[in-house]
Amino acid sequence: MDQSVVMLTLDQIAETIGGRVIGDGSIKIRSVNSLAEAQPGQITFITSERHAGLLSGSKASAVMVAVPLEDVHIAQLLVADLQSALIAVLDLFAPHLKKPSVGLHPTAVVDESATIHPSACIGPHCTIGPNVAIGEETVLESGCRVGENSSIGRGSYLHANVVIYPNCHIGNTCILHSNSTIGATGFGYYPVEGRPKLIPHNGGVIIEDGVEIGANSCVDRAKFGNTVIGAGTKIDNLVQIAHNVIIGRCCLIAGQTGVAGSTCLGDGVIMAGDSGASDHITIGDGAIVGACSKLFDDIGPGEKVFGVPAMDVGKARRINVLTRRLPDLATRLKTLEKQVDQLLAEKDNR
Amino acid sequence: MDQSVVMLTLDQIAETIGGRVIGDGSIKIRSVNSLAEAQPGQITFITSERHAGLLSGSKASAVMVAVPLEDVHIAQLLVADLQSALIAVLDLFAPHLKKPSVGLHPTAVVDESATIHPSACIGPHCTIGPNVAIGEETVLESGCRVGENSSIGRGSYLHANVVIYPNCHIGNTCILHSNSTIGATGFGYYPVEGRPKLIPHNGGVIIEDGVEIGANSCVDRAKFGNTVIGAGTKIDNLVQIAHNVIIGRCCLIAGQTGVAGSTCLGDGVIMAGDSGASDHITIGDGAIVGACSKLFDDIGPGEKVFGVPAMDVGKARRINVLTRRLPDLATRLKTLEKQVDQLLAEKDNR
Amino acid sequence: MDQSVVMLTLDQIAETIGGRVIGDGSIKIRSVNSLAEAQPGQITFITSERHAGLLSGSKASAVMVAVPLEDVHIAQLLVADLQSALIAVLDLFAPHLKKPSVGLHPTAVVDESATIHPSACIGPHCTIGPNVAIGEETVLESGCRVGENSSIGRGSYLHANVVIYPNCHIGNTCILHSNSTIGATGFGYYPVEGRPKLIPHNGGVIIEDGVEIGANSCVDRAKFGNTVIGAGTKIDNLVQIAHNVIIGRCCLIAGQTGVAGSTCLGDGVIMAGDSGASDHITIGDGAIVGACSKLFDDIGPGEKVFGVPAMDVGKARRINVLTRRLPDLATRLKTLEKQVDQLLAEKDNR
Repeated sequence: MDQSVVMLTLDQIAETIGGRVIGDGSIKIRSVNSLAEAQPGQITFITSERHAGLLSGSKASAVMVAVPLEDVHIAQLLVADLQSALIAVLDLFAPHLKKPSVGLHPTAVVDESATIHPSACIGPHCTIGPNVAIGEETVLESGCRVGENSSIGRGSYLHANVVIYPNCHIGNTCILHSNSTIGATGFGYYPVEGRPKLIPHNGGVIIEDGVEIGANSCVDRAKFGNTVIGAGTKIDNLVQIAHNVIIGRCCLIAGQTGVAGSTCLGDGVIMAGDSGASDHITIGDGAIVGACSKLFDDIGPGEKVFGVPAMDVGKARRINVLTRRLPDLATRLKTLEKQVDQLLAEKDNR
Repeated sequence: MDQSVVMLTLDQIAETIGGRVIGDGSIKIRSVNSLAEAQPGQITFITSERHAGLLSGSKASAVMVAVPLEDVHIAQLLVADLQSALIAVLDLFAPHLKKPSVGLHPTAVVDESATIHPSACIGPHCTIGPNVAIGEETVLESGCRVGENSSIGRGSYLHANVVIYPNCHIGNTCILHSNSTIGATGFGYYPVEGRPKLIPHNGGVIIEDGVEIGANSCVDRAKFGNTVIGAGTKIDNLVQIAHNVIIGRCCLIAGQTGVAGSTCLGDGVIMAGDSGASDHITIGDGAIVGACSKLFDDIGPGEKVFGVPAMDVGKARRINVLTRRLPDLATRLKTLEKQVDQLLAEKDNR
Repeated sequence: MDQSVVMLTLDQIAETIGGRVIGDGSIKIRSVNSLAEAQPGQITFITSERHAGLLSGSKASAVMVAVPLEDVHIAQLLVADLQSALIAVLDLFAPHLKKPSVGLHPTAVVDESATIHPSACIGPHCTIGPNVAIGEETVLESGCRVGENSSIGRGSYLHANVVIYPNCHIGNTCILHSNSTIGATGFGYYPVEGRPKLIPHNGGVIIEDGVEIGANSCVDRAKFGNTVIGAGTKIDNLVQIAHNVIIGRCCLIAGQTGVAGSTCLGDGVIMAGDSGASDHITIGDGAIVGACSKLFDDIGPGEKVFGVPAMDVGKARRINVLTRRLPDLATRLKTLEKQVDQLLAEKDNR
């Protein structure tokens, strides 16, 4: 089905990514796969010596290693840093897709006041509003909408059906995945005569350079000022970033996480999958919120928290162990009560 | 970038929203911002006297207050109700966006049996099915789909790429944010010969007047009858409302919350962010389910619950405190055991 | 509003689905509804004898029962298996929607190298990439995108605005609901000079026959090999399936659930609403992960787990009960401490 398969010899791969071949460098490789699933013609890899034993059962034609292995039936590619070599090899075998067409697709509806760089690609069924600016070599796949006064820098890529509301600014080399929504009104209501009335959201969204946002994720616009996603931050699928949140640089926010209104994340914060942060709190640089953990209070730089509510990860583990021992604790408490009752009864009888 | 900046003097603002200026009423204001981020030309606000100390460091040109402050370096706008005055001022400075074009965009595909009010705006790349009715001044941005027999009342606004399945009815003055999905089949399966078979979902969805639904949220259609969202209820982003759920009037359902099948919410219920309600339960009028809390049982009117599983908020707090003290409780239990062992041993030795 | 109402007599229903009428078989029925909401002209059903008492208050014109009831004011339809009979009756009264138009809608943008079966329906504003294959009688509603080299089998149905990335393969008779995203890049980053760099995702997605995927759900593409959803598996709304996950056959994955990277589910696994599974773990055939439960470790076939972190459901219930009794346990501990202090003091005084 894939008509554009690249074939490289192991020697060619070694030369390109900088490694040393042990064994037959003339074998041909067409792609990468895991130890368990690799087929002849594929190269696999061993990230940990613990997995070396699994290699004998693998059908792979070659293996990338950081430390040479003895008694291996296939050729080895010895590399200095396995993880970065793996990325380099994956890049070599990345599927070759047709380049998107430069210019405006005839079905795109583009306001005459919009400024689209001639090298940008505006795909089928896109809708571009008034005063929008779109930079050099930026690609919009099909069905995207960019609202009035919004802008996208150069080299950014919007997958199909992304929606950008008015007055939102996306930087350079950003990637926005399909069905993500940038700039919807935040969830701020004020009771008027017993009914919730929307607080106007005059602010916007600023997404700095190199940010990646997953499929079906949402970044809400600010009430005033801007919701900000700092440069280099990566956001996974189905994530909710509420109004007026400020996220620092190079954070990692995994799937289904939620960050509530006006909360600030420093640089390099990691929020693992399905985690959450309450509104109006601060998370220090480099802090880590564990998977499925929900943070209700500020944490400082470098802190690692876990649990619901989230607390120091060491404490959370101890409490978790003790919680699982509650049946035992309850039994021991009951035993003590009987013993003490007996001691008290005997004392009275003395 | 924003070509439509409104400039008003503080006196003009005071006159429009009903307030009293203390200081220079001739200064010009162009927008609203927080104490920390306001710049010259912006008005800020103080919601609590605790924040008054921060004012001296603010670059704002004016400040809204409910109580006059002493020794303030900038003009004050004294108002009776700060929150509603803030909404009024935000409304004054709301970004002026181009009005959507009335009528059917030439790229919209509209079934000839659909009834579209002449004042409605049907944007680019919309698809409107057979027998659809769309009311006065209702706006569909680009890429929306409205399925067969569905209807939307007057003054409603569908942001880009909203999908409404067949036989769903949206009331007047509703707002649906981008990529939300109304009327997908509910998740109901019945095992037939060991495989799950979809139970037909003949019902629909009724969304009453004044409802707002966030980006990427889902309201499923009913098996029979209708899934109902009551008038004035507001739903945030990434929320799941399952089949046959009945939600009362003026509820607030925050981001990433889920309500499982056939559950009923009364009026004025608040479900905080990332909360959840199990299927076939009832939540009384005005009840509050706390953030990240998961409710498995009925609760009555006005009850406030918290935790996983959710329980009375007071009890949840006590249990939470005690859970954090489990290491201490375990240590004390161990001490007691040693002491009692000693007492028992001494008794036996007597 | 619904111009295509079917009317059948109770006798006709009995004949079609195979049941026996007790009472007047000539009454006309137009749809199905619950005991509480049924109106004249509707048939209702009683799944449990406990609900039989509610029948006297129902306005339904007939009732489906598995066991004949005494003293009933309306006609009964006696069936062998109530659940499957209900499905059959719902099928009889399913809303009759206009069939989608066969062929390519004039607004669809289809690459000339794509192979579309003449009986397939490609709706308005769809975009079909190079080398795509779409099978017999498969329907794409409006606004869908199918990326380069991807394929969809026969008899599948994509609701509006579904996005399929390149190199993804959807089987036969699958249903994908609106705004779902298949094949976005997984969330895999590697630190390069202190910044997260995306690991290339050369793999794809394989969705086998008979799979159903809910609205706004995401299935990410693999780093290498494929993310796989096994035949007959059903996935609800707002679900996240991460890169390289392997899901077996006939699993049920309810709303807002997340499965993290490289995790394997066996056949017939049930993940209830808002549940989660950590990365790189294995869930055995027929295992059940309870609602709002988060699994961090492997579980074997048939295991039932609950809680955060998830553990054996029986143990989770005991711990849950004890957690709620923590205030009582703490009080009892304090009482014991006083009693033991007294005993120790008396001993010293002896």
